Amino acid sequence: MYREQIKVLDCTIRDGGLINKHDFDEAFVREVYRSLSEAGVDYMEIGYKNSPLLFDPKEYGPWKFCDDEVIKRVIDGVEVGSKIAVMADIGRVNMDAIKECAQSPVDMIRVATYAKDIDKAIVMVNEFNEKGYETTVNIMAVSRDQGPELDEALHQLEEECKTDVVYLVDSFGAFYQENIEHLVKYYKSILKTKEIGFHGHNNQQLAFSNTIEAIIQGANYMDATVYGIGRAAGNCTLELLIGFLKNPKYDIRPILDLISKKFVPLREKIEWGYIIPFAIAGMMNEHPQAAMNLRNSEDKENYRAFFESFTNMGIE
Amino acid sequence: MYREQIKVLDCTIRDGGLINKHDFDEAFVREVYRSLSEAGVDYMEIGYKNSPLLFDPKEYGPWKFCDDEVIKRVIDGVEVGSKIAVMADIGRVNMDAIKECAQSPVDMIRVATYAKDIDKAIVMVNEFNEKGYETTVNIMAVSRDQGPELDEALHQLEEECKTDVVYLVDSFGAFYQENIEHLVKYYKSILKTKEIGFHGHNNQQLAFSNTIEAIIQGANYMDATVYGIGRAAGNCTLELLIGFLKNPKYDIRPILDLISKKFVPLREKIEWGYIIPFAIAGMMNEHPQAAMNLRNSEDKENYRAFFESFTNMGIE
Repeated sequence: MYREQIKVLDCTIRDGGLINKHDFDEAFVREVYRSLSEAGVDYMEIGYKNSPLLFDPKEYGPWKFCDDEVIKRVIDGVEVGSKIAVMADIGRVNMDAIKECAQSPVDMIRVATYAKDIDKAIVMVNEFNEKGYETTVNIMAVSRDQGPELDEALHQLEEECKTDVVYLVDSFGAFYQENIEHLVKYYKSILKTKEIGFHGHNNQQLAFSNTIEAIIQGANYMDATVYGIGRAAGNCTLELLIGFLKNPKYDIRPILDLISKKFVPLREKIEWGYIIPFAIAGMMNEHPQAAMNLRNSEDKENYRAFFESFTNMGIE
Repeated sequence: MYREQIKVLDCTIRDGGLINKHDFDEAFVREVYRSLSEAGVDYMEIGYKNSPLLFDPKEYGPWKFCDDEVIKRVIDGVEVGSKIAVMADIGRVNMDAIKECAQSPVDMIRVATYAKDIDKAIVMVNEFNEKGYETTVNIMAVSRDQGPELDEALHQLEEECKTDVVYLVDSFGAFYQENIEHLVKYYKSILKTKEIGFHGHNNQQLAFSNTIEAIIQGANYMDATVYGIGRAAGNCTLELLIGFLKNPKYDIRPILDLISKKFVPLREKIEWGYIIPFAIAGMMNEHPQAAMNLRNSEDKENYRAFFESFTNMGIE
């Protein structure tokens, strides 16, 4: 598959940060940045832009806050580097502290939102756009939220929002390729002036194939992470995505080195990937939190009881 | 997805046997059989029907030979059990030793063949059919072999072969869903009186999504293994496939127990799954043997050199 418009966004440090409290050291982040840049990856999402007034910097690593000066330090000296993206959650950003894009090392700000919060998201995104940033709006948990609220949110984005890109996000790793086909077509039918992006989770080993399906249906912004790192089951792996894309600007070899040297050892210390409770959460279209709690308990391998905790739930 | 005609064939012991010289003990195989039967899985492929005159029984476990008496012992006492399948390779079976189906615990014999050996395969399969067995023909390595030989093989199967089922096999884990869509349609256009099956390998985390794609395109016989066990990257996982299929006859819970108790510990002793050299072999459409050799060497984590061993190969 070669379509020049396709952009690859690596969210290794941002999504991976959800399993280590955003506590990657600067040398590690710098090596990831250099490898991604050599590989020709278009964007590197380096963390969250949360306000240190709302979260205690002693409890979290630097990539929960993404101070401009820290970012400058880790990307300094890398020529022809990937563009830098950060993620912003609604209500957690000190908007006054966001400089003009021209004064910041950040190129893109991505706003994560639920469909019901779309009005707040649009206000934020438009302000980032006015400050000169590229922006995206990432609508989360769509597998739970496909009714009239989503429809209205998409129409508002098309009509009121300055962003160029709207992401379909499979937060729970619940979608099969037939869902992706339907949803990308649906997004495109409303968002006639926007690009579509896709962010998958790998609970059911479908993040990569769903990413391919989104590409086939015309999405052009694809998220991935090195060795699939990310919360719970993790994400679409960057190395498989680059292997699939035929654009000669991408080079898989720096990513292979990075995995050999840094991510195989890291995987021995922190857990992500194909693990049965995360797969069950995906099948059940559930948030992975219960599965993550299970994995930190003595019952971590009691899969049947975990499965039955969903099927035996009382519903009236 | 609920289509009554869909059959699930578990090949845990057969394909998993390729990584431990077929040396599962009888208690283990019995527990797998009981769990699959409780889960409603249609077939269990229990091993290869190789002649002990051609392979030394001291070097391999019992599931390389699948003696009828050994099979009877491990399935004895399980009521309403899965049907038993065995695999036969061309030129490795003592045909005279194959009893009539009515005298054997085996219900199905699957013949694995390359397209170029289809004449030999058809002679074998027809003989098994005449002895009363259900049969399938599994054409291997189709990702390397899609020219006129495959076309001729499919026509011969339709016209000369008594089998009911022809399998598309992604031996190298090289196919994307667009290939599966094309090939299942192509197989169906020629094999008008046969059912189509699919057997995937998980080198690129696509075995499950390719299985779904084959189902969407009308294939009805789907191979899977418990926890994805199998040579190199392994196979489509049975638990995800059962989670996807909506036929109420399947029950995932016995499989979850089996994984908790037997396959998580087994995975700590023998290696299969998403491992970068296997992924590279899949991307390159190569047999996994070189990657398996690498994993048994001191260079096991040197992914870049392994990748470059393919891209720097001289071709004139």
